[in-house]
Amino acid sequence: MSLISTSSKGVYVIAVTPFAEDGAIDSASVDSVTDFYLEAGADGLTILGMMGEAPKLTYTEALAVTRQTLARAAGKPVVVGVSAPGLAAISELTKAVMDLGAAGVMVAPPGNLKTNEQIISYYQQIVDALGSDVPVVLQDFPLSTGVSISNDSLGLIIETCPSIVMIKHEDWPGLAKITALREAEVNGRRRVSILCGNGGIFLPEEIARGADGAMTGFGYPEMMVEVCALAAAGDIDRAQDIFDAYLPLVRYEQQPGIGLGARKHVLARRGAIRSSAQRRPGTPLPRTAIEEIERLILRQEQRLAALGR
Amino acid sequence: MSLISTSSKGVYVIAVTPFAEDGAIDSASVDSVTDFYLEAGADGLTILGMMGEAPKLTYTEALAVTRQTLARAAGKPVVVGVSAPGLAAISELTKAVMDLGAAGVMVAPPGNLKTNEQIISYYQQIVDALGSDVPVVLQDFPLSTGVSISNDSLGLIIETCPSIVMIKHEDWPGLAKITALREAEVNGRRRVSILCGNGGIFLPEEIARGADGAMTGFGYPEMMVEVCALAAAGDIDRAQDIFDAYLPLVRYEQQPGIGLGARKHVLARRGAIRSSAQRRPGTPLPRTAIEEIERLILRQEQRLAALGR
Amino acid sequence: MSLISTSSKGVYVIAVTPFAEDGAIDSASVDSVTDFYLEAGADGLTILGMMGEAPKLTYTEALAVTRQTLARAAGKPVVVGVSAPGLAAISELTKAVMDLGAAGVMVAPPGNLKTNEQIISYYQQIVDALGSDVPVVLQDFPLSTGVSISNDSLGLIIETCPSIVMIKHEDWPGLAKITALREAEVNGRRRVSILCGNGGIFLPEEIARGADGAMTGFGYPEMMVEVCALAAAGDIDRAQDIFDAYLPLVRYEQQPGIGLGARKHVLARRGAIRSSAQRRPGTPLPRTAIEEIERLILRQEQRLAALGR
Amino acid sequence: MSLISTSSKGVYVIAVTPFAEDGAIDSASVDSVTDFYLEAGADGLTILGMMGEAPKLTYTEALAVTRQTLARAAGKPVVVGVSAPGLAAISELTKAVMDLGAAGVMVAPPGNLKTNEQIISYYQQIVDALGSDVPVVLQDFPLSTGVSISNDSLGLIIETCPSIVMIKHEDWPGLAKITALREAEVNGRRRVSILCGNGGIFLPEEIARGADGAMTGFGYPEMMVEVCALAAAGDIDRAQDIFDAYLPLVRYEQQPGIGLGARKHVLARRGAIRSSAQRRPGTPLPRTAIEEIERLILRQEQRLAALGR
Repeated sequence: MSLISTSSKGVYVIAVTPFAEDGAIDSASVDSVTDFYLEAGADGLTILGMMGEAPKLTYTEALAVTRQTLARAAGKPVVVGVSAPGLAAISELTKAVMDLGAAGVMVAPPGNLKTNEQIISYYQQIVDALGSDVPVVLQDFPLSTGVSISNDSLGLIIETCPSIVMIKHEDWPGLAKITALREAEVNGRRRVSILCGNGGIFLPEEIARGADGAMTGFGYPEMMVEVCALAAAGDIDRAQDIFDAYLPLVRYEQQPGIGLGARKHVLARRGAIRSSAQRRPGTPLPRTAIEEIERLILRQEQRLAALGR
Repeated sequence: MSLISTSSKGVYVIAVTPFAEDGAIDSASVDSVTDFYLEAGADGLTILGMMGEAPKLTYTEALAVTRQTLARAAGKPVVVGVSAPGLAAISELTKAVMDLGAAGVMVAPPGNLKTNEQIISYYQQIVDALGSDVPVVLQDFPLSTGVSISNDSLGLIIETCPSIVMIKHEDWPGLAKITALREAEVNGRRRVSILCGNGGIFLPEEIARGADGAMTGFGYPEMMVEVCALAAAGDIDRAQDIFDAYLPLVRYEQQPGIGLGARKHVLARRGAIRSSAQRRPGTPLPRTAIEEIERLILRQEQRLAALGR
Repeated sequence: MSLISTSSKGVYVIAVTPFAEDGAIDSASVDSVTDFYLEAGADGLTILGMMGEAPKLTYTEALAVTRQTLARAAGKPVVVGVSAPGLAAISELTKAVMDLGAAGVMVAPPGNLKTNEQIISYYQQIVDALGSDVPVVLQDFPLSTGVSISNDSLGLIIETCPSIVMIKHEDWPGLAKITALREAEVNGRRRVSILCGNGGIFLPEEIARGADGAMTGFGYPEMMVEVCALAAAGDIDRAQDIFDAYLPLVRYEQQPGIGLGARKHVLARRGAIRSSAQRRPGTPLPRTAIEEIERLILRQEQRLAALGR
Repeated sequence: MSLISTSSKGVYVIAVTPFAEDGAIDSASVDSVTDFYLEAGADGLTILGMMGEAPKLTYTEALAVTRQTLARAAGKPVVVGVSAPGLAAISELTKAVMDLGAAGVMVAPPGNLKTNEQIISYYQQIVDALGSDVPVVLQDFPLSTGVSISNDSLGLIIETCPSIVMIKHEDWPGLAKITALREAEVNGRRRVSILCGNGGIFLPEEIARGADGAMTGFGYPEMMVEVCALAAAGDIDRAQDIFDAYLPLVRYEQQPGIGLGARKHVLARRGAIRSSAQRRPGTPLPRTAIEEIERLILRQEQRLAALGR
């Protein structure tokens, strides 16, 4: 199975972890949601991320989900989130999932890192502990982690940690950071792959500034696939038209907390998973929210129809 | 000049503070931007908020901007942000602006408040210090203040602080909080006015859940006015159509930090202010961002034209 | 092996986890440090706490350290820290260590909890997930967790979670919280055991206010044992004399970060562990710090001699 | 009146602001506490710091306290805390107090600064705004500000901001930072004065590592004066003996929040101020706390007597 690299691109969908109403992992839905993502055109998957409810799984469950997803993913690269409070747990899980065939691992910084030096040192310890042959995705998501990584810090990490091949970019605002990353490469710094997060809410601008695609979740992943493809083909206006049609729902799913409930509702509605249940502690979607989502979907379909889709 | 009350509604635009390129307050633009907001249909203004660069003004300047805006506002209510690290400064500024004719003051919680009890006590001290005749807007904006106010805390504040007449609602996600506020009123709690922030990015849903309008900034405030009017008239779909046309730019302006630069660029472009300059320390808008905004405005105009606007 | 309960008291030493210079767990030292603590008069031990470098251990290692400590502890109660990002991991580790014979588990709140309601709900979920037969220690340590638990929140948790039998009290300042807890019991709330942390730096005052003892680490745990015993016997002044003699070193060890290095240095110096090494990432103790500690120990010995010890 | 400089040393007491029970500034006590500090041997004073309840004063009051303290300080240097949310307010207050004769101003970083670059840029803007002729004290107090300044950041600030002449050092743990600062000077970086805070709880170690003295508060400032003098004279053991005698109370006063109540209680008890009242919102000292303090003072006196004091 292939590894991710500095030239990886396209759409890596952040996969949900499907649960039954009783909180057990819904294995049948692990298969069906994997199929769903790949049929939508995903170039890869990222499992056990924050929106995959990873901290709610035991180690054994995390391995089981990884094994099953890899078996189903038909050779497409699967990145596994391995963030944990300590290096030992990160190393242990990394070794296990790489042995199973993962394409790489994703690591977000722990919230106690403050200064540039602490952040840089953390990633140097990570790559040292994981070994130079494990491709690492650095997740840059200050809104959730509380850790702000400056352009210069990111640059030093890239320079000193060759096995970090990809940035999951979801600083907010973060458009200028993409530009800064690409400009540094023009000036000689090694290239990294940049896949963008934040539910895709700035996807057109991100692609235009040099991002290689998206690594995020959305109930209609085909939107991200099509926007990336149209942008790659140079049809920016059509890409933006498609994007705009989905934007009201993108905005809704991007809400912290309740966004996961919204996403799982959409996925269940579309048959990708059997239940929208989250494992405890989760935020059940209130009736009003479901009505809002249904209304947004109806309008979205009308608008897509007007675009000939 | 009238005071705000628990029945205030409509659109209170969060006004920018116009500066010349050299950092001086641009008095001519204080007048012109006030005219601009009122011509767009604003029901009121809120000055010296976070997006009004209030912390960059001296006390004397804050009073001057208040005096000038009040003189120009043609009797429309003007709320003044008075948040400061201590009660004495808040009281002093409140007394001064109320004497000048302000319609009320807005207070955000300081970032060192942690527990429910500390938050509730803070607002009780505020209304005690300001006096029961000064209408207060509670700004609930956790993303910026770092202070999370639970539904129960908000309820206790409302019950024990009668002079808090309005919530500037910008929790995110915050739709459920609007519903909870309104449901508590059905069960007998006194009514408060709820005007929503966050750049209006959830305005249709907020209105549908019972908000009384918006208190936020956007380069095209006429959008908020029209959406509120259409929603009030029951034409929810048309309201959403108008909203959707502006949503890509709403999303762009809502970015923390760079959003103010985007907003001032739009306002300068539309002639509402002479310069998009921010007083130091500010974030000048890079060329790429200006191009992105210009592109969004062009598409916005096309889409509004298609809607017959 | 006995379980902790609401009437547990005395000194539960927060145990270090001994490592060899190469980062491997030093099993021989796990035995020797356990002996050392018990010979110093400890009433119990708490392992895998923050100062036990727990996040640096794999799950397998955590179980091994637990098993070995329990085997060596000669029937004394051993509490195990099980804090983790998710309920599943906490439940899994809890079940395993309780099956091995642990006396209870300790849970600190995760840093993303903000409002009273979130904190209370978290502990309700914890005790629900762990089962009513597992005694739980609530670790109240805002300086490290970032979570402030108000007196009222703590009260509600105590009222609704009967299996929380003990508070590891290390709010700072926290003396008033002990008083509030005990006063609520006078007024009818069920009793909880209160053992104090913060390296013992307020131990005499804490005992005087009604704490049942200490649950913290210090290179000279016999100090805590003697202070508690003297206080229990009513000889407050002698207790304070002993305490004061150790206070300069207590203060030194209480420093965040470097404090663990100081503690391990003292323990290694006293023969309790073979190496002062911390597993990576750790903070090696600089030469200057070692000299400062040695000087404090020398003065401490002189002062204890003057007290007839 | 003299200005502070990179060679300033000794004890600059962080002065309390005395209030009457009704919350008014107690002018008579402003004089008496100034006398008290100078009679204790203070080399200078720092007013309007965090422990001076500065945020509770209006601008007019801040100037009045400054004017009165300067008039009473008999030519001793008085540093004024000018931290505020914005540059304009900092500049305005700085100009005013320097015109009145202040020896310099102290600026802590605002809590929204995250990355090294943001922190460095902030201080560059500060010195640029205040002008090169105003000596600035950088307050490095992460526990209170939430801003961690790395050694390298501090170094860059020192190199690029010549008017920052002094560091108020109260990082915790912070001993290694003093050593790093002094080592950089050995290697050619310009010297800065380092005065230490944190209530003096590490004063002997700080002096030994090269600090120039203390800038902090304590109810017995003569302790700091004597410790600094003995250390300067090379009598380190006697310095530590004196320090140790006061340490139990130092520890008590260092508690966040309640520490100010403790300090004001001691100062009122000693006749330095007429009332221990804090302006609202303050934390009145409970009876139990007063008893604890009285007991510590009694023991302190006995111990000092044993030392021949």
